Amino acid sequence: MSGRVAIVGLGPGPAHWMTPEACSEIEAASDIVGYAPYVDRLALRPDQRAHASDNRAELDRARLALALAAEGNAVAVVSGGDPGVFGMAAALFEAIETKPEWRALEVVVAPGVSAMQAAAARLGAPLGHDFCAISLSDNLKPWAIVERRLKAAAEGDFVLALYNPASKARPTRIVEAFDLLRALRGAATPVAFARAVGRADEVLTLTTLAEADLSLVDMATLVIVGSSETRFIARDGRRPWMLTPRSYGAPR
Amino acid sequence: MSGRVAIVGLGPGPAHWMTPEACSEIEAASDIVGYAPYVDRLALRPDQRAHASDNRAELDRARLALALAAEGNAVAVVSGGDPGVFGMAAALFEAIETKPEWRALEVVVAPGVSAMQAAAARLGAPLGHDFCAISLSDNLKPWAIVERRLKAAAEGDFVLALYNPASKARPTRIVEAFDLLRALRGAATPVAFARAVGRADEVLTLTTLAEADLSLVDMATLVIVGSSETRFIARDGRRPWMLTPRSYGAPR
Repeated sequence: MSGRVAIVGLGPGPAHWMTPEACSEIEAASDIVGYAPYVDRLALRPDQRAHASDNRAELDRARLALALAAEGNAVAVVSGGDPGVFGMAAALFEAIETKPEWRALEVVVAPGVSAMQAAAARLGAPLGHDFCAISLSDNLKPWAIVERRLKAAAEGDFVLALYNPASKARPTRIVEAFDLLRALRGAATPVAFARAVGRADEVLTLTTLAEADLSLVDMATLVIVGSSETRFIARDGRRPWMLTPRSYGAPR
Repeated sequence: MSGRVAIVGLGPGPAHWMTPEACSEIEAASDIVGYAPYVDRLALRPDQRAHASDNRAELDRARLALALAAEGNAVAVVSGGDPGVFGMAAALFEAIETKPEWRALEVVVAPGVSAMQAAAARLGAPLGHDFCAISLSDNLKPWAIVERRLKAAAEGDFVLALYNPASKARPTRIVEAFDLLRALRGAATPVAFARAVGRADEVLTLTTLAEADLSLVDMATLVIVGSSETRFIARDGRRPWMLTPRSYGAPR
């Protein structure tokens, strides 16, 4: 089989966070497959075919991409952020598992800046030490495994980066997660809500575990919950920075 | 104070993984501060001053950058990978904490592709689900907190991305970590060693928790240990892909 699939990370939004590899993979593709808002972001040439699809249709989208590649096309599957971090890469390889001949295709993953990294960059250095990335979506996993992981992350005193914290179908995920975390971590634990980072409607909210207003959290929000070491650095008239230092247990 | 510090992620090595923002921040800087091998990577103009320093001198380097900025210079602090993930961002904000007037400086973080993301891209989709990033370095934290976090990560059945798995001063960190993980996770758990990803001397090794040859691991290696869901996808005559699926507990 001569076809090729590139799974391409577009980063969180702005062009200045998109890698040259991602740009050249899209330029080289005859077919662009992806969730409609991501495909719409691109300036495609008239000779490039766009295959935009709905959200939550990841496996269908992956199968379409592989079928197009199996016909000899050069396919780019576009993903927000990093396709390897709660993006399209896993769906693509899951689809490959279902059809043995697809294993002969050339597959390339072009990594990108993920939402937690863009959020961290805007906030200071909240991920400056060991951390966990957890998706709160329970579309494909039982909520019990989310709870188990939140508890384990609290036990390990990790910083938490929470993806998919709420959805129309389940607006209360983040409420349940915070109920659990509030029982395990200090009330003053620093928390940040980073919404639509890098886009025109970006909103950054700094708060604490006890005082966090969870009605501010939607699907475009990346939530960071600090460890026992995370702190805010106050500034005159400006938003504080959020820091998780490299050391652990050091005197302050 | 009119100075400015940009903390810039260069990505794992190759230019195609460096963001346009990182490039423009370096172009705009009068002074470039960083660990010598990172500074050497850059094509600086004659009017730009390079301040290359030794490894493990992060806090001194951060203070130098802030002092230069306080004099009114435009300073870029360069960091491999993403400065927010075991990079220079935390050291910079720790240094800011030590001198109140530095809080008035303009500080920007330019995120980048981190080593675990480049490794994941080469391997398939090993970080396709919830994961933890842990530095095995005990220069700044007690080894006991590393052990606590490895245990918690195993309890949560997270995929693990292990940074700084060995050093000349402590070559046995990864051995101790694997001794602990082998007692907690299945022998067949997929493991990958990704060394110098994207560079000429890149080496990818796929193995299992039981069979892993830890003598292959050095400071340039990023180690990924799978969850109970992680698996290899075999291919004829080629390296298998490594996949952690988006679902949990699904029949295979």
